[in-house]
Amino acid sequence: LFRQVYEGLRSAIVTGTVRAGEKLPATRALAEDLGVSRTTVVLAYEQLLAEGFISGRGGSGTYVSGAFPSRPAALQQVTASTKLSRFGASVTLYPSPSLPEKRPSLRYDFSFGKSDLDLFPFAAWRRLLLRCIRKFSLHAYDYRMPSGSLALRESIATHLARARAVRCDASQVIIVNGSQQALDLACRVLLDRGDRAVIEDPQYLGMREVFRAAGVHLHPVPVDEDGLDTSKLPNAARLAVVTPSHQFPTGTILSMSRRLELLNWARRCNAMVLEDDYDGEFRYGGQPLESLQGLDREGRVIYTGTFSRTMFSSMRIGYIVVPKSLLKPFTAAKWLADKHTATLEQEALSEFINQGTYERYLRRVRRKNAQRRAALLRAIADYLPSEVRVSGDGAGTHILLWLPAPYMEQETVSRAAQLGVGVYGISPYFIESGRSRPGLLIGYARMTERQIREGIQLLATALAAAARARKK
Amino acid sequence: LFRQVYEGLRSAIVTGTVRAGEKLPATRALAEDLGVSRTTVVLAYEQLLAEGFISGRGGSGTYVSGAFPSRPAALQQVTASTKLSRFGASVTLYPSPSLPEKRPSLRYDFSFGKSDLDLFPFAAWRRLLLRCIRKFSLHAYDYRMPSGSLALRESIATHLARARAVRCDASQVIIVNGSQQALDLACRVLLDRGDRAVIEDPQYLGMREVFRAAGVHLHPVPVDEDGLDTSKLPNAARLAVVTPSHQFPTGTILSMSRRLELLNWARRCNAMVLEDDYDGEFRYGGQPLESLQGLDREGRVIYTGTFSRTMFSSMRIGYIVVPKSLLKPFTAAKWLADKHTATLEQEALSEFINQGTYERYLRRVRRKNAQRRAALLRAIADYLPSEVRVSGDGAGTHILLWLPAPYMEQETVSRAAQLGVGVYGISPYFIESGRSRPGLLIGYARMTERQIREGIQLLATALAAAARARKK
Repeated sequence: LFRQVYEGLRSAIVTGTVRAGEKLPATRALAEDLGVSRTTVVLAYEQLLAEGFISGRGGSGTYVSGAFPSRPAALQQVTASTKLSRFGASVTLYPSPSLPEKRPSLRYDFSFGKSDLDLFPFAAWRRLLLRCIRKFSLHAYDYRMPSGSLALRESIATHLARARAVRCDASQVIIVNGSQQALDLACRVLLDRGDRAVIEDPQYLGMREVFRAAGVHLHPVPVDEDGLDTSKLPNAARLAVVTPSHQFPTGTILSMSRRLELLNWARRCNAMVLEDDYDGEFRYGGQPLESLQGLDREGRVIYTGTFSRTMFSSMRIGYIVVPKSLLKPFTAAKWLADKHTATLEQEALSEFINQGTYERYLRRVRRKNAQRRAALLRAIADYLPSEVRVSGDGAGTHILLWLPAPYMEQETVSRAAQLGVGVYGISPYFIESGRSRPGLLIGYARMTERQIREGIQLLATALAAAARARKK
Repeated sequence: LFRQVYEGLRSAIVTGTVRAGEKLPATRALAEDLGVSRTTVVLAYEQLLAEGFISGRGGSGTYVSGAFPSRPAALQQVTASTKLSRFGASVTLYPSPSLPEKRPSLRYDFSFGKSDLDLFPFAAWRRLLLRCIRKFSLHAYDYRMPSGSLALRESIATHLARARAVRCDASQVIIVNGSQQALDLACRVLLDRGDRAVIEDPQYLGMREVFRAAGVHLHPVPVDEDGLDTSKLPNAARLAVVTPSHQFPTGTILSMSRRLELLNWARRCNAMVLEDDYDGEFRYGGQPLESLQGLDREGRVIYTGTFSRTMFSSMRIGYIVVPKSLLKPFTAAKWLADKHTATLEQEALSEFINQGTYERYLRRVRRKNAQRRAALLRAIADYLPSEVRVSGDGAGTHILLWLPAPYMEQETVSRAAQLGVGVYGISPYFIESGRSRPGLLIGYARMTERQIREGIQLLATALAAAARARKK
């Protein structure tokens, strides 16, 4: 009721129905007119008084304030013609980010970049969350350090040393909201608009767009079966952004000699290297190849990884490991960006790692993915034409199928979808379209061996149909 | 064991102890030498082979690869002389962000910006978290929309319409990691290096530094008892960043006529206004003054708020409400920054609001803070010298005490601390030091009425001592 009276009066004043200087009715009179209690009207007048809409002149009544400038333009919502920053204008050009479609028609979806949620120990995870919720002291609800929970940073440093041969102590680990934030922070801290950065071609879109939106001059360097072709590195750049353990999307592993060449190059140009180890936990036929960071003796490598690929995506916890000389700007940049990453899941995650549950889970996933990979390679050998070449099967959870003529990428993707099979073209990942070759990304982390086999069999049908269609 | 053998060999190769082209001992021989199983050595060789350190030449044995470039520099960690971006160099100058010290010596800490955790319904919050953890479908663990949980965005839109007269629908609400991220995203989307932005003087450091690090030319506009002095606005700017409902740190409320003037100014210069409503839920002597956004008819106001001030800081959930014309760049910027805010607490928060628990909690806090405020004003009237002027008591959870001569700010802060009383000087919040006047920030959201009374009594002693010290 108060609200109605207040808003009615306010609107009358703002729209000019009651004019500046006009006297308002006495509260008692208005209360009778409106059939409300006098208190309601008094409260509404007090509110309007506090907001400066009306003024009381002692005993002489209440008047509409005269101090107002004309009210701003029309009442209808006009869209301001806002000038965006160059960053703002650049990101406006993106296709609207949207939820990955649920495609019920795709019975065999070889999508990539996702973990197998069926293997994740949700019961243990919930127990830990619950325990953290219960044991939290009030202190834990206040602002925390921008670099994140010290317990988690220690767990991560230990895990990375053992599993990825990363050389660091906990002080060098900064908790971020997934590796996407690590890319963004590195770009902001290291690069100015117009600076040059090396990027693998093809590469991950979320990586490319961070640098592009920041106005960085991207120098794409091609990738072959040994990973980034270091002989094609430019003479100067400020940063190289690489995925050495399983190049995205081609899946190749950067060879040891090229790793050393890359580090030497970085030293020669005084460049930094950003190693995105999104997939480093999964490698077949040997221990995981150690990280590039572990080879670095000069503090030139910034290392980043995430739990969204190994655990699940919606958690948003990743880490960036920076040389000690860069701790200050990276920590400050994280603080400016969002103060710190949310606390609860950090604490649960730290326990999850320390208890060994994370390691056990990873082993289970590795074993399962190895079986899936074997089934996939067998099915490819059994069903696909021999000209279709497999790449990137040494690590990770997806492979690449290079398609020679007469198989065309888009045609194959469409025909496969018609048969209920989801495969993904590689072309959009190339910056230099002249370098693009037809290929299909095949993820297998969420498929059963049977689905893999049936899906590849159907893909063979789609390939044959695509080739026939081309000949016509 | 495998690891030892592998690492020993690898180190011998990398450090040059074994040279390129040299033949390695046969696996059987080396196994005997080292007293390990032959399998261990075979595995180590295979790993080194996979990494490209060694190569097998058919039956003729295993050789150290010759393809290596010289290994990068020395083994000791050399710090690369990294060139930072202008952003990176700017943030490096900050004082290291650190955890707010626990100061056991401060029995009466009038710190500000924190909620009273004793009033927070942790039991209800834990129940909701738990329910969300249990009911989550697997789907909820995949990547989500960059703008956040639709359920939460709807809850927020409804709450803001009712409580703050914000005009928006859920599509305009983007979930961010606290209002700090809102400031950062707005700065990036709207402003280029060198663009001019209006900022209140004094103002919040985390706000100022976002714009300063981005190279924005800040135009500080003074604040008086009616808030931002709109007569001092420059003729042109791209953005004005304001805290109309409780200016930080002075606590003044922007008067209605100045609100309209600010909007008219924005229209004249085609500028945007960023309204940081960090404290809008708390106002005394009337309903909360409605938001500036609610007065805007042109889509010029971007509105942001956060739950870290009303609930607790470590959660990191805030929101930004943008005009529809700016949805695209803001959503894309959020996606580039960190894909999306973590899901679990978003879902729990949405339930928390929808059940009415949040509203009930706010009412309880409002009531309690009103009592604290009354106790504070009473104590000030009873104990402090009448020349000390109170400002900013109309809203929020802190007030400002302006100190006339002979009271000096730093001297008073130190003397109060010696008596176990935490009060905070306003000087650091001014950009233009010439405008700075001595004043003390007094937060009261975490104090009992008794603590408030005793603390102010001690502050009176500190003030007197500071004045005496000055005279000497």
